[in-house]
Amino acid sequence: VRGKKVALVTDSNVGDIVGVAAQAELVRGGLEVEGFTVEAGEASKSWTVAGELLEAFASVGLDRTDAIVALGGGVIGDLAGFCAAVYLRGIDFVQVPTTLLAQVDASIGGKTAVDLRAGKNLAGAFKQPKVVLADTEVLDGLPDGEWRSGLAEVAKGAIIDSEEFLAWLEDNASALVKRDPDVVTQAVARAAAFKADVVAADERESKERECLNLGHTLGHAIEKVAGYGAIPHGVAVAEGMRFAARMAVEFAGAEEKFVARQFALLDALELPQLDLELDPAALVEAMRSDKKARGGRIRLVLPVSPGTWATLPVDEETLLEKVRDHFA
Amino acid sequence: VRGKKVALVTDSNVGDIVGVAAQAELVRGGLEVEGFTVEAGEASKSWTVAGELLEAFASVGLDRTDAIVALGGGVIGDLAGFCAAVYLRGIDFVQVPTTLLAQVDASIGGKTAVDLRAGKNLAGAFKQPKVVLADTEVLDGLPDGEWRSGLAEVAKGAIIDSEEFLAWLEDNASALVKRDPDVVTQAVARAAAFKADVVAADERESKERECLNLGHTLGHAIEKVAGYGAIPHGVAVAEGMRFAARMAVEFAGAEEKFVARQFALLDALELPQLDLELDPAALVEAMRSDKKARGGRIRLVLPVSPGTWATLPVDEETLLEKVRDHFA
Repeated sequence: VRGKKVALVTDSNVGDIVGVAAQAELVRGGLEVEGFTVEAGEASKSWTVAGELLEAFASVGLDRTDAIVALGGGVIGDLAGFCAAVYLRGIDFVQVPTTLLAQVDASIGGKTAVDLRAGKNLAGAFKQPKVVLADTEVLDGLPDGEWRSGLAEVAKGAIIDSEEFLAWLEDNASALVKRDPDVVTQAVARAAAFKADVVAADERESKERECLNLGHTLGHAIEKVAGYGAIPHGVAVAEGMRFAARMAVEFAGAEEKFVARQFALLDALELPQLDLELDPAALVEAMRSDKKARGGRIRLVLPVSPGTWATLPVDEETLLEKVRDHFA
Repeated sequence: VRGKKVALVTDSNVGDIVGVAAQAELVRGGLEVEGFTVEAGEASKSWTVAGELLEAFASVGLDRTDAIVALGGGVIGDLAGFCAAVYLRGIDFVQVPTTLLAQVDASIGGKTAVDLRAGKNLAGAFKQPKVVLADTEVLDGLPDGEWRSGLAEVAKGAIIDSEEFLAWLEDNASALVKRDPDVVTQAVARAAAFKADVVAADERESKERECLNLGHTLGHAIEKVAGYGAIPHGVAVAEGMRFAARMAVEFAGAEEKFVARQFALLDALELPQLDLELDPAALVEAMRSDKKARGGRIRLVLPVSPGTWATLPVDEETLLEKVRDHFA
C-alpha cells in the first residue's frame, strides 16, 4: 500500500471535520492523498464534471495501481464511482458513505452513473467498490431531509425482506427517527445486508434486483414533475411505496391490513403523505421516460406480503387512472 | 430483432456509399436506424463528443434493448464502443470496421476509450462487441497512410505469433502492398485471429496481452512528440518495432538475423525507417507519461524469435541512451 496514491473525492457539504479526519487517516496509513472537492448537489453528477475530475486525476499522475475514494453521499459515490470505472478503463474504488441513504443503499451494489441533460443516471457503469466503510458516527450532523431519504430505503428493505425485519423496524421506528445510535447502527447493518443479498443474486439487474425499484418508479416521477430538489428523495419514494402498496391489493392479492401496516410505518418514520398537487398525466409521462421502462411498458414492483413481491407491467391508461385515484 | 432501434455511428470520412449501403442493409433487416455522424479524426474521440453522442442517443429514445453500431475506423470504434459501454450502463454493440487497422486490431479485444486533454485513451471501458463484421471490400478506397497503419499491425502479429505466419507474410508482402484481394482477406483473417487468441487468454491485459504493445511504447511517443497526425500511426509503430528488434538483441538474446528479417519485412510493407529529427529526451518523457508505465517503470516488449517475446522493464537512463543510439 505504501506509495500508493489516493484521489479523495468529496463535496462542499461534507463537513471539513469529516474530510480532514478521513484525509489524516489515509495519510497515517502511508498513502499519498490528493483531494478533489466538487460542489454539493445533483448538478455535480454530470458528464462534464466527471470529465473535469478525470482530467484532474491525470494531472496528478494517478495511475492504475492507485485508488479513488468517494467520501460523501450518493452523488459523490455515483460520480467518483463512475470515474473509477472509466479512468484508465478502471482503477480501484473505495466508498466512504457519509449519508444514511448512501450507507444503506447507494454505496452498495456497484451501480454508478452520472446524469445527462436528457435525464438522470443515463450514463454509467457497474463498478464494485473494493470496500465500503460505513461509519454511522459521521451521520451526526445530517439534515432532516437527508435522514428521511435514508429511512425510506430502510423501510423499503424491511418490507421486501421479511416479517422479521419489518417487525423490528416497526418496533424501532421512533428510536430511529430520534437517531438512537445503537438503533441506527443496526438499521444500517440490516438494510445494507438486505441490499447486498439482493445484489449478490443478480448483479446486473433484471429479475431479483428489480424489487429494489419498489416505490421508485412513481417516486422518480414525483421528483421530476415537482422539480428536482423540491421534495426530498425519500419522501417521494415513500409516496411511491404508498401507491405500490395500494396497487398490490388490486393487482397482486395483497391484504388491506398490510397496506395499513406500511402506511403506519411510513408515518412513524416521519415520511408523510404528500399533499402536493401534481398533474397525473405528467407523472405518467415521466414514468414512461424513465429508462427502466422496457419496450414501452412501465413495470411496477408491488409488495404482496412481508418478504414477497410481484412485478406488474401496466398500461398507461390504467396507470393514469390509478395515479389520479391515489392523489384524489 | 424487429422494432429494435440501431444507432449507427460513423464519421465524415466513411464514404457515403458505404454508409448508405450499411444503413440500407440494417433497414432491410427490419431495424429502425438512427444515423449519427461525427467529424473524422482523432479530435472526435473526446469526452465531450462522447457526451454529445450520449445526449443524442437519449433524445431519440434509444433504450436497453437497442444497439449501437460503429461504422468506421478505430476512432469510431473506440468512441461508439465507449458510448455503448456507458449508455444506460451498457447496451449491445456491433463493430463494422472500415479500415485495415480497425479490421485487424482496433475492433478486436473489447478495449474502448476516449482521449482526455491530458492524454490519449485515458478514459474508457472494456466492451466486447456482440459481433464484428469485417468486410475487406470496404477497404478499397483506403488512403495509403491508413493502409500502412494496418500493415504495421499485421507485421506485429506475424512476428509475435509464429514462424508460420511470419513466413507467410514475407512471401505475401508485395501482394499485400498491392492490395491483392485474396491476400488482403487472408491477412485480415490471420491477424484478427492472432489478436482474438491473445485477448481471449487475457481479456483485462497484464501478462499475455502485453505482447500487443510491441512497437507501441516508442511508437506512441513518436506520434506524440512529432505531433499527432504528422506521422501515420503505422509508421510510428513500425519504428518502435525496429527499436524493439534491436533492443531484443542486447537484452533478450535475439539473433541479429532475426532483426534483419524484421527490418526487411517492414521495408517490404513500405513502412520505411523514419528520417525525422526527434528529441530523444522528449521521447523518453512521452514514454514515461504513457499510461502503461507502471510504478514509474517503462516496460518494452522485445521479440526474441518468431513466436516468442519477452518484456523488459527499463530505467530511463538506459532508455535514453538506446533511443539516442537508435536515431543516431
